[in-house]
Order: sequence, then structure tokens, then C-alpha cells
Amino acid sequence: MSEALRPSDRAQSVVAFGGGHGLAASLGALRLLVHDLEVDDLTAVVTVADNGGSSGRLRTEFGVLPPGDLRMALAALCGDHQWGDTWARVLQHRFAGQGEIRGHTIGNLLIVGLWEQLGDPVAALDWVGRLLGTSGRVLPMALTPIDITAQVRGVDPADPDALTAVRGQVEVATTDGIITSIALEPADPAPCPEAIDAVHAADWVVLGPGSWFTSVIPHLMVPALREAIVTSDARVVVTLNLEEQAGETPGFGAADHLAVLAEHAPDLRVHTVLADTESARDGLEELRSLARALGAELVLADVARGDGTPRHDPVKLAAAYSSIMGGR
Amino acid sequence: MSEALRPSDRAQSVVAFGGGHGLAASLGALRLLVHDLEVDDLTAVVTVADNGGSSGRLRTEFGVLPPGDLRMALAALCGDHQWGDTWARVLQHRFAGQGEIRGHTIGNLLIVGLWEQLGDPVAALDWVGRLLGTSGRVLPMALTPIDITAQVRGVDPADPDALTAVRGQVEVATTDGIITSIALEPADPAPCPEAIDAVHAADWVVLGPGSWFTSVIPHLMVPALREAIVTSDARVVVTLNLEEQAGETPGFGAADHLAVLAEHAPDLRVHTVLADTESARDGLEELRSLARALGAELVLADVARGDGTPRHDPVKLAAAYSSIMGGR
Repeated sequence: MSEALRPSDRAQSVVAFGGGHGLAASLGALRLLVHDLEVDDLTAVVTVADNGGSSGRLRTEFGVLPPGDLRMALAALCGDHQWGDTWARVLQHRFAGQGEIRGHTIGNLLIVGLWEQLGDPVAALDWVGRLLGTSGRVLPMALTPIDITAQVRGVDPADPDALTAVRGQVEVATTDGIITSIALEPADPAPCPEAIDAVHAADWVVLGPGSWFTSVIPHLMVPALREAIVTSDARVVVTLNLEEQAGETPGFGAADHLAVLAEHAPDLRVHTVLADTESARDGLEELRSLARALGAELVLADVARGDGTPRHDPVKLAAAYSSIMGGR
Repeated sequence: MSEALRPSDRAQSVVAFGGGHGLAASLGALRLLVHDLEVDDLTAVVTVADNGGSSGRLRTEFGVLPPGDLRMALAALCGDHQWGDTWARVLQHRFAGQGEIRGHTIGNLLIVGLWEQLGDPVAALDWVGRLLGTSGRVLPMALTPIDITAQVRGVDPADPDALTAVRGQVEVATTDGIITSIALEPADPAPCPEAIDAVHAADWVVLGPGSWFTSVIPHLMVPALREAIVTSDARVVVTLNLEEQAGETPGFGAADHLAVLAEHAPDLRVHTVLADTESARDGLEELRSLARALGAELVLADVARGDGTPRHDPVKLAAAYSSIMGGR
């Protein structure tokens, strides 16, 4: 970097962690920064713990990584050109009918076929990325399928305070109890080397939004990935959810989300905690002091869609990221 | 066309009819003429009567055209560039395993998904063609799935001379009896308008090689398609199979293939009958006089692979087509 350039004058390198709709929202925002040339290197790292629906069926049938969240991330990074947009719609297309294909998406089947044909999970995802003309790369958080296990309180009728082990992403995400912690099986899965390299080369790492216990925190439970995040020079942004999520985080405020993240990764230093102004109104002081304890600045911004759904608005979220990353 | 150009000096427009491996062989040859700029407009018209395997299952599950032969034609038209070649291999990839996806190819699923997503069978095939960078267009012979029925002799143990009706492409192609004629259900299916237009604009129409009763002759049983072929100025080339095919044409020589084709389309005029020199050695005079009766010149050429398989060699077949179409 030339000395004449301040950090805000050059394009940033960003790695975004998550899974499912939360990561798609994050990528929908970061993609706009790629188009604006504020970000020149964008990598999405995706959970591979899904055991439900089309992904769960394909994982069981072929022993492969669950493809669904990877497909969704690829589609989210697709540009607005007709070619990529059409293929993204096709890959997101889910079969109806009553037969054996029902519920599968084209993209899931295509990704599994590419894995079988090319024998390299990362190369296969890169081929789909080229097909869609994505504004970034999509990588799995590990090279083998993972199961999430959770310690859950309140599901044992005999002892409401007892902790019960719940296994499987779907089961954890839909538990009636209160999740106190999660772990992975296997506990030390083979990481994706390209994801480790991307973290070390990154200026920024973005965690969240998304299903907190099953899509965001799992990344920090892959030892090699957490080690890379903790030792990298990249600054960590934690983007909090807009509201509690039934099953995973009932009754959670913004501060509670941040607290359980910190409990799962005590050595994590955070540069910025990004919360929606309205969502963080209750318990703001607790959130502010928790952020400070993690070494982070709390940034409040209007990042919600404002249509009543608990979803981030890509343009507002992009503006918030731009402000944080550009220091403007 | 400039008056200074003789027909052999300009690129030709070709429509090739067939299905399955036979059409793929034909397209593998014609593709080379596109690359050599001898053919500038190549259209494949494909049977849609398959009721077996992956195509049969998808046809039953979704009520769509059977995609398998369309996929194979698209792959056969794919160029030798890495992009198209990789996607062609992926589309041809057939799932193994023991589960619900077993036996399906990626390409079949992708085509069905495109049909569902785009709602237009021809536009969907054009999208796959653009993906593969094909050297031509692939169209279905009709817009609705078709069943082939056959009158078969020799399967009624009580009366070996009795004719029995056999229904379904798989059942017809594997009958133990002797096929005397075929028909379509429905008898007058909606043709593909783009296929009709292509025939009227063509310089050459190529029929065969391929499964004679289930992939080649069916095109002539679609009334609008036969009408187009018969009334078009395009010259018709019939490319004969290299040998008999168990089930469909046991005991058939080259002349027998030509004879049953003529019986199914009495008003068809043929410009050239192309036969492999070695395959046509027996019964050559009968073949020559039959060809003459159809208005055709008989061209004998070495077009077999020469490896013991009854398959056409694409380079040799291309040379034969080049000679016929260029008049050289």
C-alpha cells in the first residue's frame, strides 16, 4: 500500500461468516461494497452443519457437505446481470410435486454433482461462482459435514434445571428449551485451507447476523478457524440480529447475543459491534459495557428493512459497513 | 447470397433429427463442420418419447418432456473449450448411491428445473446451450411427451403371425418380436414451431443414425414435422446404421432400414443415402435400387470407428457430410 493512501482510500478485503438467510443478508450488503469498489476481495465462509430438508437428505444419501447454505450464499453474491440472475433463480428453484425429487433445489443437486464429478469441494463451488458471476468466493467452514450439539435447559420434565444434550442443527434450532452452549461433532473438523488463508489476508471479518447458535457461533468452534480469526490482523465486526429467534434465542436481547458469543470464544477481540438502533434500545447500557469489555466500539445504525420483518436492509447495512470499514 | 458464390462456397444450414447415442454421433460430426465454417446454422431435433430411466421417472413425476436425449444432444454440441467441456461433463454426470436421486443425471434435473422456472421448453434448452457454448441449437420434436406404439409380430405364442400392439419406447426398443410399424400417441402432437421454421430454412436435413424405430422414424410420424420436411427445399440425407440393433432391427440389413423408413413416409424424397462401405457390402444392389426409387444417390464411405463397436467415427462422418453437402 502506498504511504500516500490512507486505509479508507483503498479497497478492503472482507471475510463474512454465517449460514442461511443471515449470511445472505450480510452478503447482499457486502456485495454492494464490491460494486462500489470499496471491497475488492470478499469471501463467505458457510456453516456445514445442516441436517434438515434437501441438504439433510443429500448429506445422508451421498455423505457430502450439506449444500443448501452454500447455494444460498452463492446466489446472494450474484450480480444484477441477466446471465447470473437467471442462473441464480434457477439454482434457487425448488422442485414441487409429490415424488422423490420434491423439496430439492436445482442448486443443491448441481453442487453435489459437481462435488462428485470434480472431487474437490472448493473447486466445485468456484465453478458455480463463475457460472453466477458472483462478487466473491464461497467456502465451507470445514471439509467434512458437522453436527451441532447443544446443552439445553428446561426440556427435562423431571428436572427443569437439568441440562440435556440435543444433537443436530434442526433439533437445536427448534428446541423448546434454553440453549446454554453448543459444540461440534467432530470437535476438531478439517478446516478449509482457503478459508484460513482468507482470514489471515483479510482486513475485516464479519460475524453475523444469522441463527446465533447454529449459523454464527459454530464458526468459532472450529479450532483452526477460531485460531485464525484470533491471530489475524483482521478487525472483527459482530453484526447483531434484529430480534430474538424462536427456538434458538427466545427472550434474548442484543446484549444476550453478544454475551453468549463471547462465552463461546473467550479469546476473541472485537473491533466493532453493529446493532440496529431500534433493536438495541432496551438494555443499551448493558450492551455498551459488554462491547467495551470485548475491546469493541458499539455502532448503532438503522439497518432494519422497516417493513415489520426482522431482516436487515442490504442498502442500509452496506452503508453501515462502509462507514465502519472506511472510517467515514 | 452473392451470385459470385456457388453453393459449395457458402456455409450450409443443417437440421439433424434423431435421439440418444445415434443423434449424438451425428452431432459430433456436424459440430466439426460448424468449427470448419462449412455449416453456420445447426439445429438438432430430438425425440421426446423416452419412458425409461431418469427421463421416464422425471416425465412421470413432473409431466414434462423426457429430458435425457435433449441433454445428450446438448452435450454432443459442446465445444472443446474448458468452460463448456466442464459443464458438459457435469451435466452428463449420473448420480450413484442407493437413494432417491440414484440414476438421475445433473443435466436432466437442471433441464426440468429450467422448464419449471422459465415455463418455456425452448428458452430453457437455449439457456443450457448458452451455458455449454454449443455449436448449435437443440429442440424437441414436439411440445408434449409422446408415447411410441408398435405393431409387433411373433410375440403371441398362440399365433406367431399375429400382430401385437406394444406401447412405450423402452418396450418397443426391447421387444422380442419383429416390429412392422410404429405410430405415436398422441398421433398429432403439437410440434415445436422453431423446429418447423428450422426445417423450412435448412439447406440439409439429416435423418439418422440411431435407434431406427424409436429415435429416427418417430420424427416422420409427427404430421407437421413430416409436412415440413417433405415441402421444404432442404435436401434430405439418410444416414444408415452400421448394423442391426437387437430388439429394434434384428436381422435388418442396410436396405431393410431404408425400406421401413420409406414405408413410414411414402411421400419423402431423399437426396442422399449415406451408408458405411463395409456395412452395406451385403445386399448392396438392393440398397442401391431402393435409394434410386426414393430419388436418392447412394454414397458409400468408411464412416465406422473401426474399433469393433457399431459406432460412427465423428471425423470420418464429418468428411462424408462435407463431401455430400459441399458437392466436393
